[in-house]
Amino acid sequence: MYGELAQSVMTSSFPSPLFQQVTIVGVGLLGGSLGLVLKEQGLAKTVVGIGRNPGNLKLAVEMGAIDAFSSDPREVVAESDCVMLATPVDTYVSHIKHWGSCLRPNTIVSDVGSVKGALVLEMESQLPSSVHFVGAHPIAGKEKSGVAYAESKLFRGARCIVTPTSRTDSGALNTICDLWEAAGSVVISMDPHDHDWVLGAVSHLPHVAAFSLIHTLKDLEESRTVDSLDLLSFSGGGLRDTTRIAASSPEMWRDICLANRGNLLQMIDRYIGYLQKFQEILEQEDAPKLYQLLEESKVIRERLQ
Amino acid sequence: MYGELAQSVMTSSFPSPLFQQVTIVGVGLLGGSLGLVLKEQGLAKTVVGIGRNPGNLKLAVEMGAIDAFSSDPREVVAESDCVMLATPVDTYVSHIKHWGSCLRPNTIVSDVGSVKGALVLEMESQLPSSVHFVGAHPIAGKEKSGVAYAESKLFRGARCIVTPTSRTDSGALNTICDLWEAAGSVVISMDPHDHDWVLGAVSHLPHVAAFSLIHTLKDLEESRTVDSLDLLSFSGGGLRDTTRIAASSPEMWRDICLANRGNLLQMIDRYIGYLQKFQEILEQEDAPKLYQLLEESKVIRERLQ
Repeated sequence: MYGELAQSVMTSSFPSPLFQQVTIVGVGLLGGSLGLVLKEQGLAKTVVGIGRNPGNLKLAVEMGAIDAFSSDPREVVAESDCVMLATPVDTYVSHIKHWGSCLRPNTIVSDVGSVKGALVLEMESQLPSSVHFVGAHPIAGKEKSGVAYAESKLFRGARCIVTPTSRTDSGALNTICDLWEAAGSVVISMDPHDHDWVLGAVSHLPHVAAFSLIHTLKDLEESRTVDSLDLLSFSGGGLRDTTRIAASSPEMWRDICLANRGNLLQMIDRYIGYLQKFQEILEQEDAPKLYQLLEESKVIRERLQ
Repeated sequence: MYGELAQSVMTSSFPSPLFQQVTIVGVGLLGGSLGLVLKEQGLAKTVVGIGRNPGNLKLAVEMGAIDAFSSDPREVVAESDCVMLATPVDTYVSHIKHWGSCLRPNTIVSDVGSVKGALVLEMESQLPSSVHFVGAHPIAGKEKSGVAYAESKLFRGARCIVTPTSRTDSGALNTICDLWEAAGSVVISMDPHDHDWVLGAVSHLPHVAAFSLIHTLKDLEESRTVDSLDLLSFSGGGLRDTTRIAASSPEMWRDICLANRGNLLQMIDRYIGYLQKFQEILEQEDAPKLYQLLEESKVIRERLQ
């Protein structure tokens, strides 16, 4: 009883449903979580999944993230009013080449990818002009990948950046904003290139820092082959937290790093610069300067609480 | 009733109490947590705190971490059979110079500091030869400092490294091992210099990585003064975790970094080397190599779970 009432309240501000049929291409952590939101809130009459792994798609049906799945995306997208890309960003163009021509006029194509920039312009040029592309990036995730970890609350309280361009249809943009607000996210609009700069700083660079730190520790461990020390067994909570994201999906992060490499290369330079500054302070045993640096770190970090 | 029973079972394997009077020098997060362990488990008849801040010491009494406090350490340590140093490592020698000569023969002096190496040898040479020094380092902590965050369970399940030398008294070493086992820690013995190398890798380097990352982000934010973007507001859980330890005590970490700077300088070099390798792969757009690096990261990181 209470469950039904809550649901009707939550969806009352949207035309119900928002979509007739949504196709989710790539039913992993994000795609699966989005499917759960669409189904639980009645935002789509039907949700169909497209993916490579039938076992994974069956699990998604059992979890209630999708109603059905298909191995023929061309047929499914032709019957959908919304197609959501939730695969690694590197695959978008090949997907569009495969089934873009089958889309009906006014279909909304959107995504959940961590890179925008040039990719958004590429998508706009690859899709038929009668189709509306809206780039979107919910800043949510876990270091675990796969639909098994999907949950409808994943996007709650998170920021979702939409990246309209001069070509974006305003109706389609509003619909995608409604969708992410219904998922519990705070929607923010940003230029696609600004998005990549911001995410390069707050997400991609920290990932590179964590990947590199883990490799450095492994390397240090191997440098002491004599006493075959299990170095990582001595870690406390600090190392565990600092490197948690180093266990993120290699496929997804390969694509993100390559797609945003322009920003990343510059940001890694800047990061190395700070590490070298740290070394300089240590070499000079400059205690007051070191204290100041650490005090500033604390103040800046506490803004993130 | 149950509480009393549980306590008597937990302390039954030790001579009860282990100490007549323990003096804790520096009643912060670690010193306060140790006081709670000593009191809750009846390991010490009396626990006295020494510190600079009377308000802090009063709070420690209210929390049950110490029975009393004093502004005259020389008098208090003369009546103690154990003195625990829980101040920043840089202060140890000046403490010993102040009250070392007042210690009774066979008193155990120990610590909870994150740096050992040369400091252990320095302590041994500064203390009267009739006093037993045992270096110890419980690998536990939080990014929060101060006795207000102290809790007796802080050390449970953590590793505690003891660092005996050829001069260490075996009875005193056993007593300190008993203490940390009673606190719920797994005690491991290690050469003081090996300790610093291990902790340099698993704790000090990750801290430097986090401090530098936070400064880099602040720097990037300030580089875009035109649109005064609140860059850090776009962070997800990844950045929050990666930089959590950047809010650690500046005073404590200044001393740790300086005391272990030899290891740290080399380890930062190695870390910069990996970041540059990452840049090289991005510059060459070497997708298979990047995938391999990220896949390895994931495998190594999953050993930490």
